[in-house]
Amino acid sequence: MRLLFLGDIVGRPGRNAVIERLPALRDRWQLDCVVINGENAAGGFGINEAICDELITAGADAVTLGNHSWDQRETLVFIEREPRLLRPVNYPPGTPGRGANLIDTPSGKRVLVVNVMGRLFMDALDDPFAAVDREIDSCPLGQVADAIIVDMHAEATSEKEALGHHLDGRVSLVVGTHTHVPTADHRVLSGGTAYMSDAGMCGDYDTVLGMQKEESIRRFLQKTPGPRMEPGLGEGTLSGLAVETDDRTGLAIRVAALRLGPHLEESWPRFWD
Amino acid sequence: MRLLFLGDIVGRPGRNAVIERLPALRDRWQLDCVVINGENAAGGFGINEAICDELITAGADAVTLGNHSWDQRETLVFIEREPRLLRPVNYPPGTPGRGANLIDTPSGKRVLVVNVMGRLFMDALDDPFAAVDREIDSCPLGQVADAIIVDMHAEATSEKEALGHHLDGRVSLVVGTHTHVPTADHRVLSGGTAYMSDAGMCGDYDTVLGMQKEESIRRFLQKTPGPRMEPGLGEGTLSGLAVETDDRTGLAIRVAALRLGPHLEESWPRFWD
Amino acid sequence: MRLLFLGDIVGRPGRNAVIERLPALRDRWQLDCVVINGENAAGGFGINEAICDELITAGADAVTLGNHSWDQRETLVFIEREPRLLRPVNYPPGTPGRGANLIDTPSGKRVLVVNVMGRLFMDALDDPFAAVDREIDSCPLGQVADAIIVDMHAEATSEKEALGHHLDGRVSLVVGTHTHVPTADHRVLSGGTAYMSDAGMCGDYDTVLGMQKEESIRRFLQKTPGPRMEPGLGEGTLSGLAVETDDRTGLAIRVAALRLGPHLEESWPRFWD
Amino acid sequence: MRLLFLGDIVGRPGRNAVIERLPALRDRWQLDCVVINGENAAGGFGINEAICDELITAGADAVTLGNHSWDQRETLVFIEREPRLLRPVNYPPGTPGRGANLIDTPSGKRVLVVNVMGRLFMDALDDPFAAVDREIDSCPLGQVADAIIVDMHAEATSEKEALGHHLDGRVSLVVGTHTHVPTADHRVLSGGTAYMSDAGMCGDYDTVLGMQKEESIRRFLQKTPGPRMEPGLGEGTLSGLAVETDDRTGLAIRVAALRLGPHLEESWPRFWD
Ligand SMILES: [Fe+2]
Ligand SMILES: [Fe+2]
Ligand SMILES: [Fe+2]
Ligand SMILES: [Fe+2]
Ligand SMILES: [Fe+2]
Ligand SMILES: [Fe+2]
Ligand SMILES: [Fe+2]
Ligand SMILES: [Fe+2]
Repeated sequence: MRLLFLGDIVGRPGRNAVIERLPALRDRWQLDCVVINGENAAGGFGINEAICDELITAGADAVTLGNHSWDQRETLVFIEREPRLLRPVNYPPGTPGRGANLIDTPSGKRVLVVNVMGRLFMDALDDPFAAVDREIDSCPLGQVADAIIVDMHAEATSEKEALGHHLDGRVSLVVGTHTHVPTADHRVLSGGTAYMSDAGMCGDYDTVLGMQKEESIRRFLQKTPGPRMEPGLGEGTLSGLAVETDDRTGLAIRVAALRLGPHLEESWPRFWD
Repeated sequence: MRLLFLGDIVGRPGRNAVIERLPALRDRWQLDCVVINGENAAGGFGINEAICDELITAGADAVTLGNHSWDQRETLVFIEREPRLLRPVNYPPGTPGRGANLIDTPSGKRVLVVNVMGRLFMDALDDPFAAVDREIDSCPLGQVADAIIVDMHAEATSEKEALGHHLDGRVSLVVGTHTHVPTADHRVLSGGTAYMSDAGMCGDYDTVLGMQKEESIRRFLQKTPGPRMEPGLGEGTLSGLAVETDDRTGLAIRVAALRLGPHLEESWPRFWD
Repeated sequence: MRLLFLGDIVGRPGRNAVIERLPALRDRWQLDCVVINGENAAGGFGINEAICDELITAGADAVTLGNHSWDQRETLVFIEREPRLLRPVNYPPGTPGRGANLIDTPSGKRVLVVNVMGRLFMDALDDPFAAVDREIDSCPLGQVADAIIVDMHAEATSEKEALGHHLDGRVSLVVGTHTHVPTADHRVLSGGTAYMSDAGMCGDYDTVLGMQKEESIRRFLQKTPGPRMEPGLGEGTLSGLAVETDDRTGLAIRVAALRLGPHLEESWPRFWD
Repeated sequence: MRLLFLGDIVGRPGRNAVIERLPALRDRWQLDCVVINGENAAGGFGINEAICDELITAGADAVTLGNHSWDQRETLVFIEREPRLLRPVNYPPGTPGRGANLIDTPSGKRVLVVNVMGRLFMDALDDPFAAVDREIDSCPLGQVADAIIVDMHAEATSEKEALGHHLDGRVSLVVGTHTHVPTADHRVLSGGTAYMSDAGMCGDYDTVLGMQKEESIRRFLQKTPGPRMEPGLGEGTLSGLAVETDDRTGLAIRVAALRLGPHLEESWPRFWD
């Protein structure tokens, strides 16, 4: 199978990059499954139903979230009727929506997508390792799921790498999100799981995390409140990774970074061209 | 000028990679200045004088530190007689050693190297932005210094990017360390400063941050104490970045990621070959 | 001298308790100086000019703030013309207002009031110990100031106790604020400085930190957004401490907790009755 | 029933105060149940079997722990054979020992003791609210347990107060530990649960949290390593609270602070004399 994962979409530049380029990429590379983190899609803060629909129309099979899940209040409601939108699975019982789902892809495959949030330097949540273990135990790779994609929304590289190795051999991909900076450590771990500490963001990179520089910098220099943070206005760059899995095992065979757009060194899965 | 920066050396695999490969690289690319972060060089925890000497002999013009600066107590003493070893500049007054130094390179250039530590999710320290501003105000680029390299040892990408843009046009390079994962966002910012959120580590990447996987994972699963963390035993990979500056301005012209060794996608400054 | 310090005023119950009771207490005990922390006076979030005036009219010689200093944007402006309103002294240079002031009391004394913020589990700020040292060095007790009151707005008891002992013998009083719970450790330290880890709040104690219980509890159970937090509606309790100093040295002779109102065990300075 | 709770014992001064005074107090007040937090009993760091035995011999029916549970490695072993020693109940599954136990008292009562750890500014653990709910659901007050005592080992007053109100009417006592400073907010909440944000420590109060002042202060001024922290050497003070419950309901009727020894204002349950 051919999987594509795109990191946190930040505002209009991120959305435009996805909407303009994803349909052609999906077609050109015959992608089986596309997952996008959309926690900053609405002006940098959360997601709304119209934007979620747009991303699905553009080719996302699932959209994941993170610590910004509920920045738009309507998400608490529409997530209940949108099974393709996932919020972290280790939120407390009773949280609206779901944290994992077995997605049927257009090519007839079943992909388990899990969104989970780390705890280091993040909100107080229940154990992400145990939460993901429960999900994949009930939907094992190669038996129920043809592929398993885990979006680990977390700050600390230690927690992300530890989860990657912990799940190595049991899932197709562990990919981090949240830092909005792509890492250059994409690889297939020794057990066959593809791994990347952070997918980076889809957005304007001439910014601080996708948001305009001036106010972002000012908040480090001064401790006074200022204007609302706004997304950058420049052209958005796509950032994420491409994974090819073995159809028999669901494990990864090869992986490549995807970076298309200004500011970053370009990269794409040449093995699919 | 041709500058090379290498990220946190972790244990013997990291040291060996540097010692075996740096002399040839320095020669092959005619490097003017090499700076290495060595905060984890001694078994993952700090640095000692013998190792610091080894790194300088191998070709480092300066060695920077971070939150692990004092893991080896002898560092508190020998840093006073080693002007090429720098600890974060925003440590309190009275801290042994220095946080910035104007280094004379073998090629006759003067490079201001500044080591500074971020505050988000880190120790309580004084303002890193103000601290770096003071250093570069007293040693401006193009007047006193031929190049200025700032090692921002920090956790959060927001703080690193904000410092990068804050210093853009006033220093040659702002490069992050501490996360032990190389980022893929190396670039020249609009004002002419080279930037990369994290240089990654020099060490064994089949680990968690350079330390053996089993105990690192266990500490996320259990909250009980365990054996001391030990560095991985596999072959080390070099990770960092290469920057070429304009001799007239000291600003960056081009930048390339350096990744040589197993596990990571290889990269080097082809423009120097 | 007779000093009274009252902890964080939370909303209308806290303001009412102060306005209704302070004038009589000031008169009854012949107080020389009254300092009140007002960071939550405006509906739990910051302070405005009208409320600040009310507190001064009710008998406050100075009003201190904390991490909620700027919750009401107007405070950034009116603090410049209100020398009796103090914000943490270790905010960055350029922050509006002042962090310390030598107050002339109605009884003809001069009291240095310093507001400082801790760093453990709080915002990233510059060293509070160094910042207070600078203020008292330039205005020493018994020479320039007849009394010195330091409001240490901080979370961690370790940082508060350390500052208390650090300043012992050099100031009249180190009192903590921010936790909204009075501590029972008021005493005169061995060097003559009165100390209390937290003055508690002036507000409705049948709440969580002065704010209504239901939403406060819900936010620990669920990670979804909810209604705005509102102060409790019950009767407010005064909480703080009373200090008597030696007129010759400015150091403390005796100290008593002040707790007047429902829910808490009553306490007041019986030595003044 | 008559319950006594004593806060974190710190080193020898704390142990001596308990051993010398508890037997007489137990006898004088005809105490039904005594619970002591012992997480700092062994030189400030954890507990060992000999000390645990000493405390039980002195009159403790149960000993609770906290973030220092495993500072002495032997605790991982002997806790399995000591049902009166409790560690936080919300540690991960597989953690040695137990977090709650129904204790048979000498007077023939059954008291459920629960030790739980907060998450604000503490280790990453699973939800303390849910963990305590599970324990008391399986051992309800007035049905299975004659009294229920919850030791909430936590930093933030918000989390402690929220747990107090959350459990109000369902347990006899919610008492905080960990800050080593007694609070003055002991009371019976509206639903009948006794509450105190922090029991304070049993130890030498002329210190920082029970540890010698000089090194504690130095660590706030300098970021260099220093000598190991050692407990104070002065006379220890007992700190905690006394609760009388209604035998029919198990809820609290009255509560009083206990503070016996130097430095703190003395307090004891006069209603029992
Ligand atoms: Fe994000
Ligand atoms: Fe995020
Ligand atoms: Fe490091
Ligand atoms: Fe580090
Ligand atoms: Fe407050
Ligand atoms: Fe506060
Ligand atoms: Fe403790
Ligand atoms: Fe503790």
